[in-house]
Amino acid sequence: MGIIQRDSLSLDSIAGLVEDALEGLVMDSLSNRQEMPAMSIAKEVLLSGGKRYRPIVGLISYKAAGGNDLSEVMNLALSAELIHTATLIHDDVYDRSMMRRGKPTIQSSHGIAHAIIAGDYLFSLGFKLGAGYSPEIVKRVGEACAGVASGELMQFKHVRNLNTKPEDYYAIVDGKTAGAFACGCSCSAINADSDEEIVDGLWGYGIELGRAFQLVDDLLDLVGDDSIGKPRGTDVHEGKMTLPLIYALTMLHGEDRKQLEDTLTNFSDFRLQELQALLEKAGSFDYARLLISNHVERAIDSLEEIPESNAKDLLIDLAELSMSRTN
Amino acid sequence: MGIIQRDSLSLDSIAGLVEDALEGLVMDSLSNRQEMPAMSIAKEVLLSGGKRYRPIVGLISYKAAGGNDLSEVMNLALSAELIHTATLIHDDVYDRSMMRRGKPTIQSSHGIAHAIIAGDYLFSLGFKLGAGYSPEIVKRVGEACAGVASGELMQFKHVRNLNTKPEDYYAIVDGKTAGAFACGCSCSAINADSDEEIVDGLWGYGIELGRAFQLVDDLLDLVGDDSIGKPRGTDVHEGKMTLPLIYALTMLHGEDRKQLEDTLTNFSDFRLQELQALLEKAGSFDYARLLISNHVERAIDSLEEIPESNAKDLLIDLAELSMSRTN
Repeated sequence: MGIIQRDSLSLDSIAGLVEDALEGLVMDSLSNRQEMPAMSIAKEVLLSGGKRYRPIVGLISYKAAGGNDLSEVMNLALSAELIHTATLIHDDVYDRSMMRRGKPTIQSSHGIAHAIIAGDYLFSLGFKLGAGYSPEIVKRVGEACAGVASGELMQFKHVRNLNTKPEDYYAIVDGKTAGAFACGCSCSAINADSDEEIVDGLWGYGIELGRAFQLVDDLLDLVGDDSIGKPRGTDVHEGKMTLPLIYALTMLHGEDRKQLEDTLTNFSDFRLQELQALLEKAGSFDYARLLISNHVERAIDSLEEIPESNAKDLLIDLAELSMSRTN
Repeated sequence: MGIIQRDSLSLDSIAGLVEDALEGLVMDSLSNRQEMPAMSIAKEVLLSGGKRYRPIVGLISYKAAGGNDLSEVMNLALSAELIHTATLIHDDVYDRSMMRRGKPTIQSSHGIAHAIIAGDYLFSLGFKLGAGYSPEIVKRVGEACAGVASGELMQFKHVRNLNTKPEDYYAIVDGKTAGAFACGCSCSAINADSDEEIVDGLWGYGIELGRAFQLVDDLLDLVGDDSIGKPRGTDVHEGKMTLPLIYALTMLHGEDRKQLEDTLTNFSDFRLQELQALLEKAGSFDYARLLISNHVERAIDSLEEIPESNAKDLLIDLAELSMSRTN
């Protein structure tokens, strides 16, 4: 683990550490008779080039909170990635998605049963890695997982509900995405034995970064290019009420509003351009970009109490980079 | 927790403690904003009258291993039940089961997505409860969960495979059922600070009891009455190669064997009696009952090093009772 004690932090070096640790974990599991069958399926998604946002942000938060030995939080960081991947594999089952990160999903290549079981296995492996930490950390991880479940259930409740409000959207986002970021950042600080204000500051950073992250994701579904690995308009097909849609439903009136309702209710791939034009007219894209930059700003503001360091600068970089993400 | 310190152990009193603790846990979760949406769905299965075999065996094992304070292992026992229930909910999704314990499954009443998410939530809650124990216990729980995934994947590999061998069957059973029993019993002993031979003895008890338990389950699918809460012949419909079928495929020859193959390959409800007659002719039921009583005997033999106690007697009772279970 000597290599992860270096002081020369960079996003690339941290990403490399995460990737190496993840590959090592997969190799270990594949050499274990009990784990091999499940891991040999799960690794198809686990090693398919995820952005590793959660573990990267967690590791840098630990350094920013004054932690010295990254190997102390590596299992926690991997745990976040495993649990996140488990939810992606399960999402693909009930969303009936065929592609993920430009590759066939487990449910499309192996069937529903294998996808559910592979996800369950990653959940258990993720929790096993997380279980070694303090009760406070385990409690926060458990709450974050319950939050993901609640967020997803709320999202279902609002599918194709044209009366969905921005506050519903934020409750969904906080549950399914931002809560996990906040959990990872704050637990890293707890693990670095930080003061409460540092823990709270990193929690605030995580929740705001997670909100920005989800808003960007939702925007990319509407305006991004196809390099995001899944076809654009997927959220609209699934009836997910993302913020650009909610905003446009409030802003447009008369014929435009009727046309928007019709586009959303009877969506098909060839209506994407029509939808984009309506959202543009409503100012939805500008509004979403404004909110994203507000969240990034607040994320950075949350770091106020964190002492200056290379790691703190990286957290600021990460927040700023999240705005210009294109996949 | 005073009530669970009593010395007057009985299967009923232990079952009552488990039920109370489980209901308390559900109430706590329902009063938590994050957990409420997922628990309100999950509780439909969690509180639908499961046999609570896993927590009951775990708690009695703890007492048999010399443990004094049952409240010390209650979370571990509940953890086993939550994780088990999570796998049942997920099984129902990919088996497309409509009924469980005489009630509609979550996937039939709420849909696939809600069932997957409710299961994921119970997994995370189960792990959260288990995470407070020693690293050795957490390791065993993680391995048992990986074993469940592997056992289920193996079972899929053998669906409708008429060449399935008894050793394949046992590998599947050890993974998906017996491993979890062995884990619960041995972890309870670890928690009671027992010597290694006691831990190993209870592991052996658990694995043999789990095998007997699964064999009885598989037998009930073929000969039980409808009080088991799901229609008989479900395993045959799903192509699961249970021991009575494997045995009959080995024992029958000529026309009988051809008819058996045809029954299994083109099974429908009205062919259940025909299948039963063939299995009877092959001696499958007697063979399965013989194996069950062998496993029960070995379970009891595994307790040799455990000092005499009320709890040890209960473990013996439980093993003997498992043979005559009818649902």
